[in-house]
Amino acid sequence: MTSKSIIIVAGGKGLRMGGDIPKQFLPVKGLPILMRTINRFLQYDAQMQVVLVLPENQQDYWKQLCQQYHFDKPYTLTNGGETRFHSVLNGLQQVSPEATLIGVHDGVRPFVSVETIASCYDEAAKSGAVVPVTEVVETVRRLNGQQGSNTVPRSEYRLVQTPQVFDAQLLRSAYSQPYTDFFTDDASVVERFGHEVSLVPGNRENIKVTTPFDLVLAEVLS
Amino acid sequence: MTSKSIIIVAGGKGLRMGGDIPKQFLPVKGLPILMRTINRFLQYDAQMQVVLVLPENQQDYWKQLCQQYHFDKPYTLTNGGETRFHSVLNGLQQVSPEATLIGVHDGVRPFVSVETIASCYDEAAKSGAVVPVTEVVETVRRLNGQQGSNTVPRSEYRLVQTPQVFDAQLLRSAYSQPYTDFFTDDASVVERFGHEVSLVPGNRENIKVTTPFDLVLAEVLS
Repeated sequence: MTSKSIIIVAGGKGLRMGGDIPKQFLPVKGLPILMRTINRFLQYDAQMQVVLVLPENQQDYWKQLCQQYHFDKPYTLTNGGETRFHSVLNGLQQVSPEATLIGVHDGVRPFVSVETIASCYDEAAKSGAVVPVTEVVETVRRLNGQQGSNTVPRSEYRLVQTPQVFDAQLLRSAYSQPYTDFFTDDASVVERFGHEVSLVPGNRENIKVTTPFDLVLAEVLS
Repeated sequence: MTSKSIIIVAGGKGLRMGGDIPKQFLPVKGLPILMRTINRFLQYDAQMQVVLVLPENQQDYWKQLCQQYHFDKPYTLTNGGETRFHSVLNGLQQVSPEATLIGVHDGVRPFVSVETIASCYDEAAKSGAVVPVTEVVETVRRLNGQQGSNTVPRSEYRLVQTPQVFDAQLLRSAYSQPYTDFFTDDASVVERFGHEVSLVPGNRENIKVTTPFDLVLAEVLS
């Protein structure tokens, strides 16, 4: 019997006066991105625990949005940290000790498919660590030092999405390592801990909404 | 004084009975993609020579489209080859001997910006070989042999777009090399010939329209 949790990490710039509203709060076809993201996981498993990690100074705004949109889905709210690594650490402390599988997902990826989520949790139950990936469509060049670069075989590369899903104990242990700049995603933390990461196919629409260009795409995708 | 040419390569599956219409012929906001692509280059420089490389069995359909859309822009038409390499070779034979800079562009990239085109020709006039690139937004993993993979620093990688622009004599010489599977784009041909390739920033919208998903994006971008 597996018990599933998902840590949804929403960072973005602070909500300073006159600053832009972080992308996760912007509505796409009438619903803020972050609500769409949470809904997608509850669509996969209505019983799973959702831990939402938000910078402290964005939480009031988020709560207002929830009232405004009558968003009453169950989730645990906790504070964001200095880096993504520290945000996930905070999230982990809120994950139920019953959880056997823990996923980590970017708040600004509302278009993850239920199939991708299912593949990740299913594979993690077997291998302990999994990330969804897509193939690279463009030719890839690698930079060599100061100025040079050369073509590399793109078939050898994959682009990584989220959710990244792990055996609960493995993820907790991996996150007990001291932080290094090398930790760009959760898989790199687990990898550093010495555990191989499995790959499953992601879905092409599962983009990270971070630029105005992405917002235009998001309107089309939703 | 530089004289510029662009070879626009449009491949795609053949126009067999019952088959799909190649993407380059599909209209986006009322104008076929390939016409949009040609227009973009003439917008940059109305005097430049456009060489269009099309599979022989698609040329009648293209000519019908040109009549239907009253498309009367000047271009030289030639036949596609077995691979992209051979298509470019055919195109090169139609390029004016006066040309000092020759670009090669994917027919299904109608959203290249005039700024990107200008950067490529300007830089090629200095360095002889240039490709437009974008940074990688996602975490990148590299596959190691049979099953393993590991995270690599994404800041070391770039995704390559077109137009790829070259000194005319350099490109002609590079294309006199015998074909190998290693030739995935024009830069790799020139690189193999021993010439370093410069990078300039591409534009994010400069996508290759190859899937139904891309067509949806194309409607938004046009």
